[in-house]
Amino acid sequence: MEIEKIATAYTGLETKFGLPRQSGVVPSLTARIVMEKGFSGEDLFRGMENWSHVWIIWGFSRNEDAGWSATVRPPRLGGNTRVGVFASRSPFRPNMLGLSLVRLLSVEFGTKDGTVLTVSGADMADGTPVYDIKPYLPDTEAPADAFGGFSKAAEWTPLSVEDPEGLLACLPEEDAGTLSELLAQDPRPSYHSDPERVYGFSFRGREIKFRVDGNALILTDILGKL
Amino acid sequence: MEIEKIATAYTGLETKFGLPRQSGVVPSLTARIVMEKGFSGEDLFRGMENWSHVWIIWGFSRNEDAGWSATVRPPRLGGNTRVGVFASRSPFRPNMLGLSLVRLLSVEFGTKDGTVLTVSGADMADGTPVYDIKPYLPDTEAPADAFGGFSKAAEWTPLSVEDPEGLLACLPEEDAGTLSELLAQDPRPSYHSDPERVYGFSFRGREIKFRVDGNALILTDILGKL
Repeated sequence: MEIEKIATAYTGLETKFGLPRQSGVVPSLTARIVMEKGFSGEDLFRGMENWSHVWIIWGFSRNEDAGWSATVRPPRLGGNTRVGVFASRSPFRPNMLGLSLVRLLSVEFGTKDGTVLTVSGADMADGTPVYDIKPYLPDTEAPADAFGGFSKAAEWTPLSVEDPEGLLACLPEEDAGTLSELLAQDPRPSYHSDPERVYGFSFRGREIKFRVDGNALILTDILGKL
Repeated sequence: MEIEKIATAYTGLETKFGLPRQSGVVPSLTARIVMEKGFSGEDLFRGMENWSHVWIIWGFSRNEDAGWSATVRPPRLGGNTRVGVFASRSPFRPNMLGLSLVRLLSVEFGTKDGTVLTVSGADMADGTPVYDIKPYLPDTEAPADAFGGFSKAAEWTPLSVEDPEGLLACLPEEDAGTLSELLAQDPRPSYHSDPERVYGFSFRGREIKFRVDGNALILTDILGKL
């Protein structure tokens, strides 16, 4: 089946490293979803204000050449336990489709980019192709007896973000808040234990540098525009 | 983007008419999801028992030639109010992707059909192509403050199913229960008011005939194997 890009999502997260592990995990991370010309008519969004959240179906475009793996080691299980690809939300899937639940903040028409949806709680890389937008149905999509997964098996607490040099204060307020949330959810690819190792990722044109010592994440540098 | 069928879903609902309006609305409707050969290894499902529900991403294969509509009139709004395609779960979408939340009942390997998942709360037609299976994440995919849409705008009560000829008693118990749930959610395409009009749809090799008088659905005939 051939599917067509209907929009592009922009979050300012240029690399896979640093991305939230799931949608909703970094509530303040916004995405601008810029609709393609053929899918930007006001009619297509009529009644959108009646919904608080929407599903985005999108493509793991950074993985196109990587192929899929039968099993994966989810970071939230400590990186040592293997589970099947269909028992995980791994991006290395037979079809590279991502699914994110995001809060709908606004739909704007006639901006310089055309029709733009702004959503929060996003988890896509910058420039991600979008294939569908569907309203979230709270009556049937939040089963009271659901259980699962990773969080029960490996209770997880956010890191405490330390900023000894006061770097966050130099950022625009909105970016500082989002960056703190991104860091608190521990962006490291799996559990490393070297407290001196410096990690980095790219966020809205800046290079973010940090290390992790126990339950503390220490912000060491922010390079690029401030 | 090209996506590949990984499985086929069988529900015994051969026509679009009669399908549940959403997943979870007919809790007892099961689907057998028969995996394609290349996606049936036991490894791919390792740890699946840790999840109660899964998302199915599938194709509205009955609509392939129909194209999409900018606006639709959802049955739950009475069939008279137009909303945009992205503010609805209409099957006539730019990309014909369906999204269903279903309860995972079992995963079996080495059956005569190979690897088979059995799920309940399905809403797909018989023979639907499946493109992805992902675990449902209760921690992040059931936002407490979500609101939306159709059910609030048009409070809906199930029909009372009447069976004056005792036809349901002739069906296998499981099918009788599922059929009652299917009928109670009002399978009519929109709100018609002629109490004499007889409707029909196909369910597991039988033709189901009924009419609707006010809030009562009267089962008038079941044709085919009993």
